[in-house]
Amino acid sequence: MTRTEQSRQITIRRLTSNQSIREEPDEVALEEPLEIRIRGKAIATTMRTPGNDIDLAAGFISTEGIIKNRRDILEIAHCIDDKTNDYRNIVNVYLHPDIEIDPEKIKRHFYTNSSCGICGKTTIESVQSLFPLIESDTSISINELNQLPRKLRNAQDTFKLTGGLHAAALFDINGSIVHTSEDVGRHNAVDKVIGYSVLREIDLSSLILMVSGRISYEIMQKSLAGKIPIVAAISAPTSLAVEFAVENNQTLIGFMRNNKMNIYTGHERVY
Amino acid sequence: MTRTEQSRQITIRRLTSNQSIREEPDEVALEEPLEIRIRGKAIATTMRTPGNDIDLAAGFISTEGIIKNRRDILEIAHCIDDKTNDYRNIVNVYLHPDIEIDPEKIKRHFYTNSSCGICGKTTIESVQSLFPLIESDTSISINELNQLPRKLRNAQDTFKLTGGLHAAALFDINGSIVHTSEDVGRHNAVDKVIGYSVLREIDLSSLILMVSGRISYEIMQKSLAGKIPIVAAISAPTSLAVEFAVENNQTLIGFMRNNKMNIYTGHERVY
Repeated sequence: MTRTEQSRQITIRRLTSNQSIREEPDEVALEEPLEIRIRGKAIATTMRTPGNDIDLAAGFISTEGIIKNRRDILEIAHCIDDKTNDYRNIVNVYLHPDIEIDPEKIKRHFYTNSSCGICGKTTIESVQSLFPLIESDTSISINELNQLPRKLRNAQDTFKLTGGLHAAALFDINGSIVHTSEDVGRHNAVDKVIGYSVLREIDLSSLILMVSGRISYEIMQKSLAGKIPIVAAISAPTSLAVEFAVENNQTLIGFMRNNKMNIYTGHERVY
Repeated sequence: MTRTEQSRQITIRRLTSNQSIREEPDEVALEEPLEIRIRGKAIATTMRTPGNDIDLAAGFISTEGIIKNRRDILEIAHCIDDKTNDYRNIVNVYLHPDIEIDPEKIKRHFYTNSSCGICGKTTIESVQSLFPLIESDTSISINELNQLPRKLRNAQDTFKLTGGLHAAALFDINGSIVHTSEDVGRHNAVDKVIGYSVLREIDLSSLILMVSGRISYEIMQKSLAGKIPIVAAISAPTSLAVEFAVENNQTLIGFMRNNKMNIYTGHERVY
């Protein structure tokens, strides 16, 4: 990932601490739409930071429950936009012919259960999970957990440039980084690391997902889809994230700062 | 707004700085689905923090372009959920009979242009604006701008309790607060202050919108729908937010910290 792929240099006017305004170059995080197609038909578009688009698309169709595993994907690749001749912002997925897709049903599915998890659900009852609860007995020490925020921050290359991206990282129980991603959307950052793992058939059932920001319901839902037992965050979870974690036997840790943390649910996985 | 409406007390295990774990009470920000209905038909559900739901629904249908002004709304109120007997999480809107609504078209509209602005757009070309560009010659002094972050923080009651909410505030050019809101979703916080203004017929064309977090494309789109000339944020904008602001003649200011700021676009409104 080069610098120009995830951020762009622009000219801004900066008010400095001595209250003078100077024209200066600045880096802003890229935000562009990615259209995800299944068998050539657009099923969703997400505003994302370019980079790892294949992982993002694989993660999206996985955490939305369209595919169960790597074998369901026959081919996944960028394709050209006939109108603009651009091939950066569309990813097409060919699924195994056994997977039946009703485009109307998918549209409805994404309408009622969209990528970002916070819009489009038409009925309140639809805020539920399609995935089995977590049964993993993975555990991690407090000492290892305390190291994770620093490791996550060190991996946030584009954030350092722009101050404008969410990050997600998968760690093993020894605190080694398995994979990291950055994106303007926190749900996209999570889909990218899960999609990376799906494509490489990495088992997530003994790993820890760490995110840079807050934890809403959708992050817990995507983690459950990925079978991740432990989710940790720098910031606060919402009430629904905590309720969802209790129901699905997930460990949820927040406010990881200065060797402190709050264990909201599933404390038996922390020692 | 009482404490229990926007947050909830739960019991957590807290790792303290001396590395001991204690069971303690903690406040988490509420996240619950709000179903928005037009003439009794569900058109969208957003995960939001309860409170100011009427403002949120009014803001949503306004920034999505369904209504043009207050007179288009005949009635807007919570209604009961037949299945759960609950009336907290559904808001029904009755529109003026002149406003024709095709439910399929609305569903499609929200599918292609959802509340959170980052999901559901089926085609890349749909990432465009339906609203006229800003023509306001409102301006604000650097000195007043420097005061806004402190004023915003002072208004964030639930954030102080939970550390888990976004905030949005409308200020006039003298730095007086017109209205503030808090929500787990940054787009909801913006819809709440815009909806508040729509319902009270407050002209936004000489006001400043300030948000607690980052600025993505969707925040600029909603601000444009509200005719707000100046948008300011504590954190970074994305590349698309900056491009959108240039195209629509909006002033965009970011990284407002310690009497410093970055003016990304529309610097002629800052003196």
